Amino acid sequence: MSELDVAGLQRRLAEFAASREWQAYHTPKNLAAALSVEAAELLEIFQWLTPQEADRVMEDPDTAHRVADEVADVLAYLLQFCGAVGVDPLVALAAKIDRNERRFPVGRPPGRAARVSEEGDRHSSE
Amino acid sequence: MSELDVAGLQRRLAEFAASREWQAYHTPKNLAAALSVEAAELLEIFQWLTPQEADRVMEDPDTAHRVADEVADVLAYLLQFCGAVGVDPLVALAAKIDRNERRFPVGRPPGRAARVSEEGDRHSSE
Amino acid sequence: MSELDVAGLQRRLAEFAASREWQAYHTPKNLAAALSVEAAELLEIFQWLTPQEADRVMEDPDTAHRVADEVADVLAYLLQFCGAVGVDPLVALAAKIDRNERRFPVGRPPGRAARVSEEGDRHSSE
Amino acid sequence: MSELDVAGLQRRLAEFAASREWQAYHTPKNLAAALSVEAAELLEIFQWLTPQEADRVMEDPDTAHRVADEVADVLAYLLQFCGAVGVDPLVALAAKIDRNERRFPVGRPPGRAARVSEEGDRHSSE
Repeated sequence: MSELDVAGLQRRLAEFAASREWQAYHTPKNLAAALSVEAAELLEIFQWLTPQEADRVMEDPDTAHRVADEVADVLAYLLQFCGAVGVDPLVALAAKIDRNERRFPVGRPPGRAARVSEEGDRHSSE
Repeated sequence: MSELDVAGLQRRLAEFAASREWQAYHTPKNLAAALSVEAAELLEIFQWLTPQEADRVMEDPDTAHRVADEVADVLAYLLQFCGAVGVDPLVALAAKIDRNERRFPVGRPPGRAARVSEEGDRHSSE
Repeated sequence: MSELDVAGLQRRLAEFAASREWQAYHTPKNLAAALSVEAAELLEIFQWLTPQEADRVMEDPDTAHRVADEVADVLAYLLQFCGAVGVDPLVALAAKIDRNERRFPVGRPPGRAARVSEEGDRHSSE
Repeated sequence: MSELDVAGLQRRLAEFAASREWQAYHTPKNLAAALSVEAAELLEIFQWLTPQEADRVMEDPDTAHRVADEVADVLAYLLQFCGAVGVDPLVALAAKIDRNERRFPVGRPPGRAARVSEEGDRHSSE
């Protein structure tokens, strides 16, 4: 399918919102809030599961559908947010991976790396 | 650049994590939590802004960089989560847009549509 | 200390914000966003920990301080949100426990209870 | 009512969980995730509202009930989290207000104060 790439999906989302006159709601602040809410809905699926149960979450068809559905919501709001602020998410991620490859020496766990990183930068995720 | 698509970025993220032995941390549950944390960090940029200030957030170069950086973090954890559970995020979003085009009649604001939708479905975002 | 109750802390928070002219920022929507951001910062402490590591999180003094600090932030924004919308959080919680004691039969895990509950109510947490 | 204080509500929540054998689910990590999810559900109520609509959110009885209900959920998981890690939330908040009264000079907006604060501390909320 020709639309199955990020730019094509962004176009479909923009047309969907425009034809329903939802753009007025799709401000950067509202979309950032909605993105955060959808990410929490994805987390909700896992909140009471043991790590072992969480690893098997896709074995149940209903839960698997719910996971895919929340992934779609997160991506939808992320792409719409990026459209609203003019950020290309693929370029942003490629640039971040480039930076991280320079910053994080091989062989450290994320927590340790994050603590080291925080000395020069408040973003623990970098 | 040949890697500037979702599949290529997913490969780079997987190699980055593997070469640092971070895969043990990258369980579905942990990645869902990390995705939610990064989405909140993006929201944090906007939390005290008026809608008008939020619309101009990219005019300040430091804030613009911070926004792009948080977008990259959200996308990174979303792609790594999708890798861990075996969901194709582009397929999931395309399927969701298809469903939403059938479900949401043109001309309703999101809140109203969400309320109607909740009668048959708990996902207010659909 | 005479102020070590919810009403006293709410007064101190209101005076703190008023004397710095922060009330204009403390709208219900902004406070709900800030509450969500702080809750995510608390979660961030735990995101890469195994359940076993998470259970020992207070043994490290720095992490213990960080946990208490994020708890304070969450409670601060919750109390300020409640002040802004006129909800008494203790009354709201007591009423909810009353309802839940009627709704949740003894002996079910939260996930199961949530699923049953969702048949009549979209709030999986009730 | 004699139980309408934080310690009394914590006792009721602990008894509620114990009598349903939910304690195994109530680990610090799971409770931090659940707290974050509930805070996002509160934010969800506001995500598409203008600041003006958000300020009138309690005028609609159904929405007012939903707000109180989400406040109760956030407080419930915050108190249960505090019980699990042994933090007194009122003491933590009182200590934080003490620190903030020393750190934040009167007359700065939160964003500006947060930026200044970040030079010495990564917690923008302090």
